[in-house]
Amino acid sequence: MIFKQLREPLSSTYTYLLGDQDSGLAILIDPVIAAIDRDLAEVHRLGLQLAYTVDTHIHADHITAALEMKRAVGSKIAAPAYERLPCADVGIEEGKPFRVGSLVLHPLHTPGHTDGHFAYLFDDRVFTGDALLIEGCGRTDFQNGDADALYKSVRGKLFTLPDETLVYPAHDYKERFVSSIAQEKRRNPRLGDGKTLEQFKAIMSNLNLPYPKFIDYAVPGNRQCGVCPSHLPEDLAEYCKQMTESQQG
Amino acid sequence: MIFKQLREPLSSTYTYLLGDQDSGLAILIDPVIAAIDRDLAEVHRLGLQLAYTVDTHIHADHITAALEMKRAVGSKIAAPAYERLPCADVGIEEGKPFRVGSLVLHPLHTPGHTDGHFAYLFDDRVFTGDALLIEGCGRTDFQNGDADALYKSVRGKLFTLPDETLVYPAHDYKERFVSSIAQEKRRNPRLGDGKTLEQFKAIMSNLNLPYPKFIDYAVPGNRQCGVCPSHLPEDLAEYCKQMTESQQG
Repeated sequence: MIFKQLREPLSSTYTYLLGDQDSGLAILIDPVIAAIDRDLAEVHRLGLQLAYTVDTHIHADHITAALEMKRAVGSKIAAPAYERLPCADVGIEEGKPFRVGSLVLHPLHTPGHTDGHFAYLFDDRVFTGDALLIEGCGRTDFQNGDADALYKSVRGKLFTLPDETLVYPAHDYKERFVSSIAQEKRRNPRLGDGKTLEQFKAIMSNLNLPYPKFIDYAVPGNRQCGVCPSHLPEDLAEYCKQMTESQQG
Repeated sequence: MIFKQLREPLSSTYTYLLGDQDSGLAILIDPVIAAIDRDLAEVHRLGLQLAYTVDTHIHADHITAALEMKRAVGSKIAAPAYERLPCADVGIEEGKPFRVGSLVLHPLHTPGHTDGHFAYLFDDRVFTGDALLIEGCGRTDFQNGDADALYKSVRGKLFTLPDETLVYPAHDYKERFVSSIAQEKRRNPRLGDGKTLEQFKAIMSNLNLPYPKFIDYAVPGNRQCGVCPSHLPEDLAEYCKQMTESQQG
């Protein structure tokens, strides 16, 4: 099994490349449009064929590379069935293992950051998307976010995995790359160390985070499996220029 | 493959249990005498037979369980050949893979914390002992410690492993359980982020750490593969009482 953790620095997103050496097939979890050339070059360098892109949820901070990768190399698009995206080839559901060659992802519905959010358990690793971050979690104040639901997803579902399960989040803003269930159960300041639902809700309702600058473009773009916005206000132009340049270059 | 990360709280030591389901054989890396009953119970619970204990180095802060486990269940003792321990059944050397059933450890001589220190590469995991800790490293001011050597061991050897390699240290004092080579290359305040040898030596020579309270008992005890001191000064009595109680209970 091939495993690569790729970092997209503009949005501090982690993309995960899983490769099955026997079938030559690969999956990319949460690929970012800004890094499409780098990620496809990596798949190629490893002698693999990209079979599927798989998103954990409808992202608000960046554009998924799913559609552009499909156009570039013919990969199929897997996304949570809950979202009913017409552009998806496969709808992910809990209880239905997602298989590509010998790679098997076990989808875990983990709502709370968004209602359609999924984590993916892969052997002794769990790709937690924005549900569980290293010493943090995704915000719960948009996209049908719900602190009650997130508490249940993390403490009632992810924290029941074996202690040694490796936690690979969709983002880290401090260049941490990996954690474990044991580590988050002890150290996560929002959800670990026996935090109650009331404590968690108090933390989440007092974060006072700014409105995400890109959300009104990213969410509709990602509901189309990754359409980069063509008309953007000036303050987002540089961000998207970088995305477009990376995409072409 | 079975993998368990066990924590001994008195010395904040991590012991790693590796099990091969086909042969039923297990290895314990850096077992602690205080936790002997718990660790052997875990091996038994998993339906495994303890074939070997393997130490990364001669510990100064705790007593290895190697000898007591040999007495209890007949496991063999593997230790760095460099140390020429008469009590060891197998001497570990770099370049000679250590095989137990289908488990294969690749020993990496990583001097600097102690001169005879070894790390063990196991597939995509490296057990770094006290050479590389999460956002830290072992001290270099006793047991033939040498900052020049440790810099070379970490930056010249461990940091050349693939970025995704999981770093499992022998200790963590803040309940962190796992890191990766990429993470330590970026975040380790002593050895990461392009630190020069001169910077590292300056950091290590200014730590002003106290003399380790247990070293004068632990080192000779561990050179006998784990003999618990029978006569201790009063200030260490409570520590050893806890060790003995755990050992019996």
